[in-house]
Amino acid sequence: MAVNPPRLSPPLSVPGFRVGTASCGVKSPELKGKRQDLALIVADQPTHAAGVFTQNRFRAACVDFGQETVEKHGEDIRCIVANSGNANAGVGEMERAWARQLIEAGAQAAGCLPEQTLSASTGVIGEPFPIGRIEAGMRDAAAALAPDGWARAADAIRTTDTFPKWASTRFGDYTITGIAKGSGMIHPNMATMLAFVVTDAPLTHAQLQPMLRRVADRTFNSISVDGDTSTNDTLYLLAGGIGQGRAPLGESEARAFEDALLGVCQQLAQLIVRDGEGVSKFVTIRVTGAKSEAEARQIGRSIAVSPLVKTAFAGSDANWGRILMAIGNAGVAIDRSRVSLAADDVAIIENGQLRKDYRDADGMAVFARPEFTLHVGLGLGEGSATVWTGDLTHDYITINAEYRT
Amino acid sequence: MAVNPPRLSPPLSVPGFRVGTASCGVKSPELKGKRQDLALIVADQPTHAAGVFTQNRFRAACVDFGQETVEKHGEDIRCIVANSGNANAGVGEMERAWARQLIEAGAQAAGCLPEQTLSASTGVIGEPFPIGRIEAGMRDAAAALAPDGWARAADAIRTTDTFPKWASTRFGDYTITGIAKGSGMIHPNMATMLAFVVTDAPLTHAQLQPMLRRVADRTFNSISVDGDTSTNDTLYLLAGGIGQGRAPLGESEARAFEDALLGVCQQLAQLIVRDGEGVSKFVTIRVTGAKSEAEARQIGRSIAVSPLVKTAFAGSDANWGRILMAIGNAGVAIDRSRVSLAADDVAIIENGQLRKDYRDADGMAVFARPEFTLHVGLGLGEGSATVWTGDLTHDYITINAEYRT
Repeated sequence: MAVNPPRLSPPLSVPGFRVGTASCGVKSPELKGKRQDLALIVADQPTHAAGVFTQNRFRAACVDFGQETVEKHGEDIRCIVANSGNANAGVGEMERAWARQLIEAGAQAAGCLPEQTLSASTGVIGEPFPIGRIEAGMRDAAAALAPDGWARAADAIRTTDTFPKWASTRFGDYTITGIAKGSGMIHPNMATMLAFVVTDAPLTHAQLQPMLRRVADRTFNSISVDGDTSTNDTLYLLAGGIGQGRAPLGESEARAFEDALLGVCQQLAQLIVRDGEGVSKFVTIRVTGAKSEAEARQIGRSIAVSPLVKTAFAGSDANWGRILMAIGNAGVAIDRSRVSLAADDVAIIENGQLRKDYRDADGMAVFARPEFTLHVGLGLGEGSATVWTGDLTHDYITINAEYRT
Repeated sequence: MAVNPPRLSPPLSVPGFRVGTASCGVKSPELKGKRQDLALIVADQPTHAAGVFTQNRFRAACVDFGQETVEKHGEDIRCIVANSGNANAGVGEMERAWARQLIEAGAQAAGCLPEQTLSASTGVIGEPFPIGRIEAGMRDAAAALAPDGWARAADAIRTTDTFPKWASTRFGDYTITGIAKGSGMIHPNMATMLAFVVTDAPLTHAQLQPMLRRVADRTFNSISVDGDTSTNDTLYLLAGGIGQGRAPLGESEARAFEDALLGVCQQLAQLIVRDGEGVSKFVTIRVTGAKSEAEARQIGRSIAVSPLVKTAFAGSDANWGRILMAIGNAGVAIDRSRVSLAADDVAIIENGQLRKDYRDADGMAVFARPEFTLHVGLGLGEGSATVWTGDLTHDYITINAEYRT
């Protein structure tokens, strides 16, 4: 069902980082040995870290711990441990204890301290967390640690994802590699889903944290599958260069690094939309002429979450009335007489009016494509943003009405 | 597909009001004579009026005019004219002129002035408004004016509704009768859909306007079918008693009247959910223990709009993890350790924990019912609210992916 999933080149190893996975049977003991569900990312030297986390108020204990650890020990992180199959969320009083045990087990396997260890859990909400099975599998993950483990780690953190997701790029002599998972419950408020990005470039925690927030806003916070924000969404970035003895990047180099990081995160975010639950179309919504980037994004997201717009995508129906409706619902002041709308190269609305030369058949032809771009112009300012989304299909209903996540 | 639509008793006539309908072929000329699509509500004497309107920024010109007229001439309204089949929205520069022509035609048929006339249009967005066909049909509507025309008017304002919707009650010697329409694009921000309520009770515009806003918040603003707010949502209330020579109700009588009005509007709002597009279940969400009524409603609405929760309803899956997720996403501060959740009489969560005696089969049995109530307790204060919603089904996708609204 995924929309044009690209053939991904193998992920690049990043000097100073090793990755191991294991099969613990997290979701059920019968799955042990059948699918990987535990990933361990270990840095040989302390790294500087940044994190962006879900805003959901039922967020899981592992997210609370992760935010605390990044804030207190963001210049001294050695390990990320992550499991799929169980989110350790909504389980009540044991949640914090189990999350703590996961961190301790990861730290022991990585040979570092719990305060140097970040964790993430994804999967079913509300089931008891099988910490014993995870602890038992942890030594396998430690034994498997290798520089080239990224594709296996991307596989191990999958839940309903139909393919593993990664992205790599080079930045000068440095490398940036990230993995991500996510398919349903995707509507980031801060970050969404799980994504771990590492680099051997030298950047400080103080440089990384604001950078990661900006990048998250333009990537993971700019996608929507179904408008729901998960309890466990987490994005981590580890930079190992300083621990490896290099001086921090200067201001202009750091800006260039941010562009490279943006590219990696954008690829990961787009892969998540392409693999969205039930998604059969990949739609880019480009909003320009807003008073600010934030307002442009708000309008893009309003279009991206509207069930009526998303079902029109599914039906290949160039229903521009619904798109205007969604623009009007974004809670942003607009001037109707300046609004324009185009789908790919077909201009539909200009100055708030249907163009006289617009033919419905032309719009329909665009909406029938598996990928297309909506261009929304507001004519009010210089703010722009891009949002990526999919359609709302029968398969989404089938997946979510018939399977428990 | 409607969920347990009640057998409605015939609507009560209201002294001083007459109603007429006509078949104009608004949607297409071939429908002329086949279905009613124009309704005219005429008060024999001037009435005091109140209105609540969509917040959508692409709202139609008829909504702009209606709000203006209620504000300026709210003590002197004689007529509501409404058509289905075309929303006269998103059509560009002619929209205001067409909306004005509809008002003028209605005023002429009612024998009053345009500034005494409110209008509403519902149906397809973005198609040219066939004002000529409506003007031609207006004399039929005027000729049909009669005190007992309410059921026919409820029928004439339908679009995708599968049944006409009305509610009546007695308030002492007075009568309150309302009609409504709405099925998709239902997620009120102010009011949603079209609803017209009239009474012969004597109340002033100054009494009615704040009352109608309070009532709308607890009724039409407390339902959600699909999270989308229409461009044309309008709720009008006309009170004829003062024009009929009676003194305005005193404070305590007005409060009692508000309760009666609440009952009528609640019935209409619930009928809209029961007839929601693709809805197969009618779910009441009762939130208590919030810091305020507004926060309680916000949490109820967050649950009511979540696609993951609504597909769980559709699948008869007592997926309480998704409900916690939606509570956490409402943007309201909560204390997880105080949250409780029950479905009908089955207690699920207590003090933020799954109850030890909860059995999944019990929850599933409730979620399999065509109607059930979720009880959400927050343990923080005295605020409470009730929200009504339906499920998200394959039929919703089919209706909206395959038909243009």
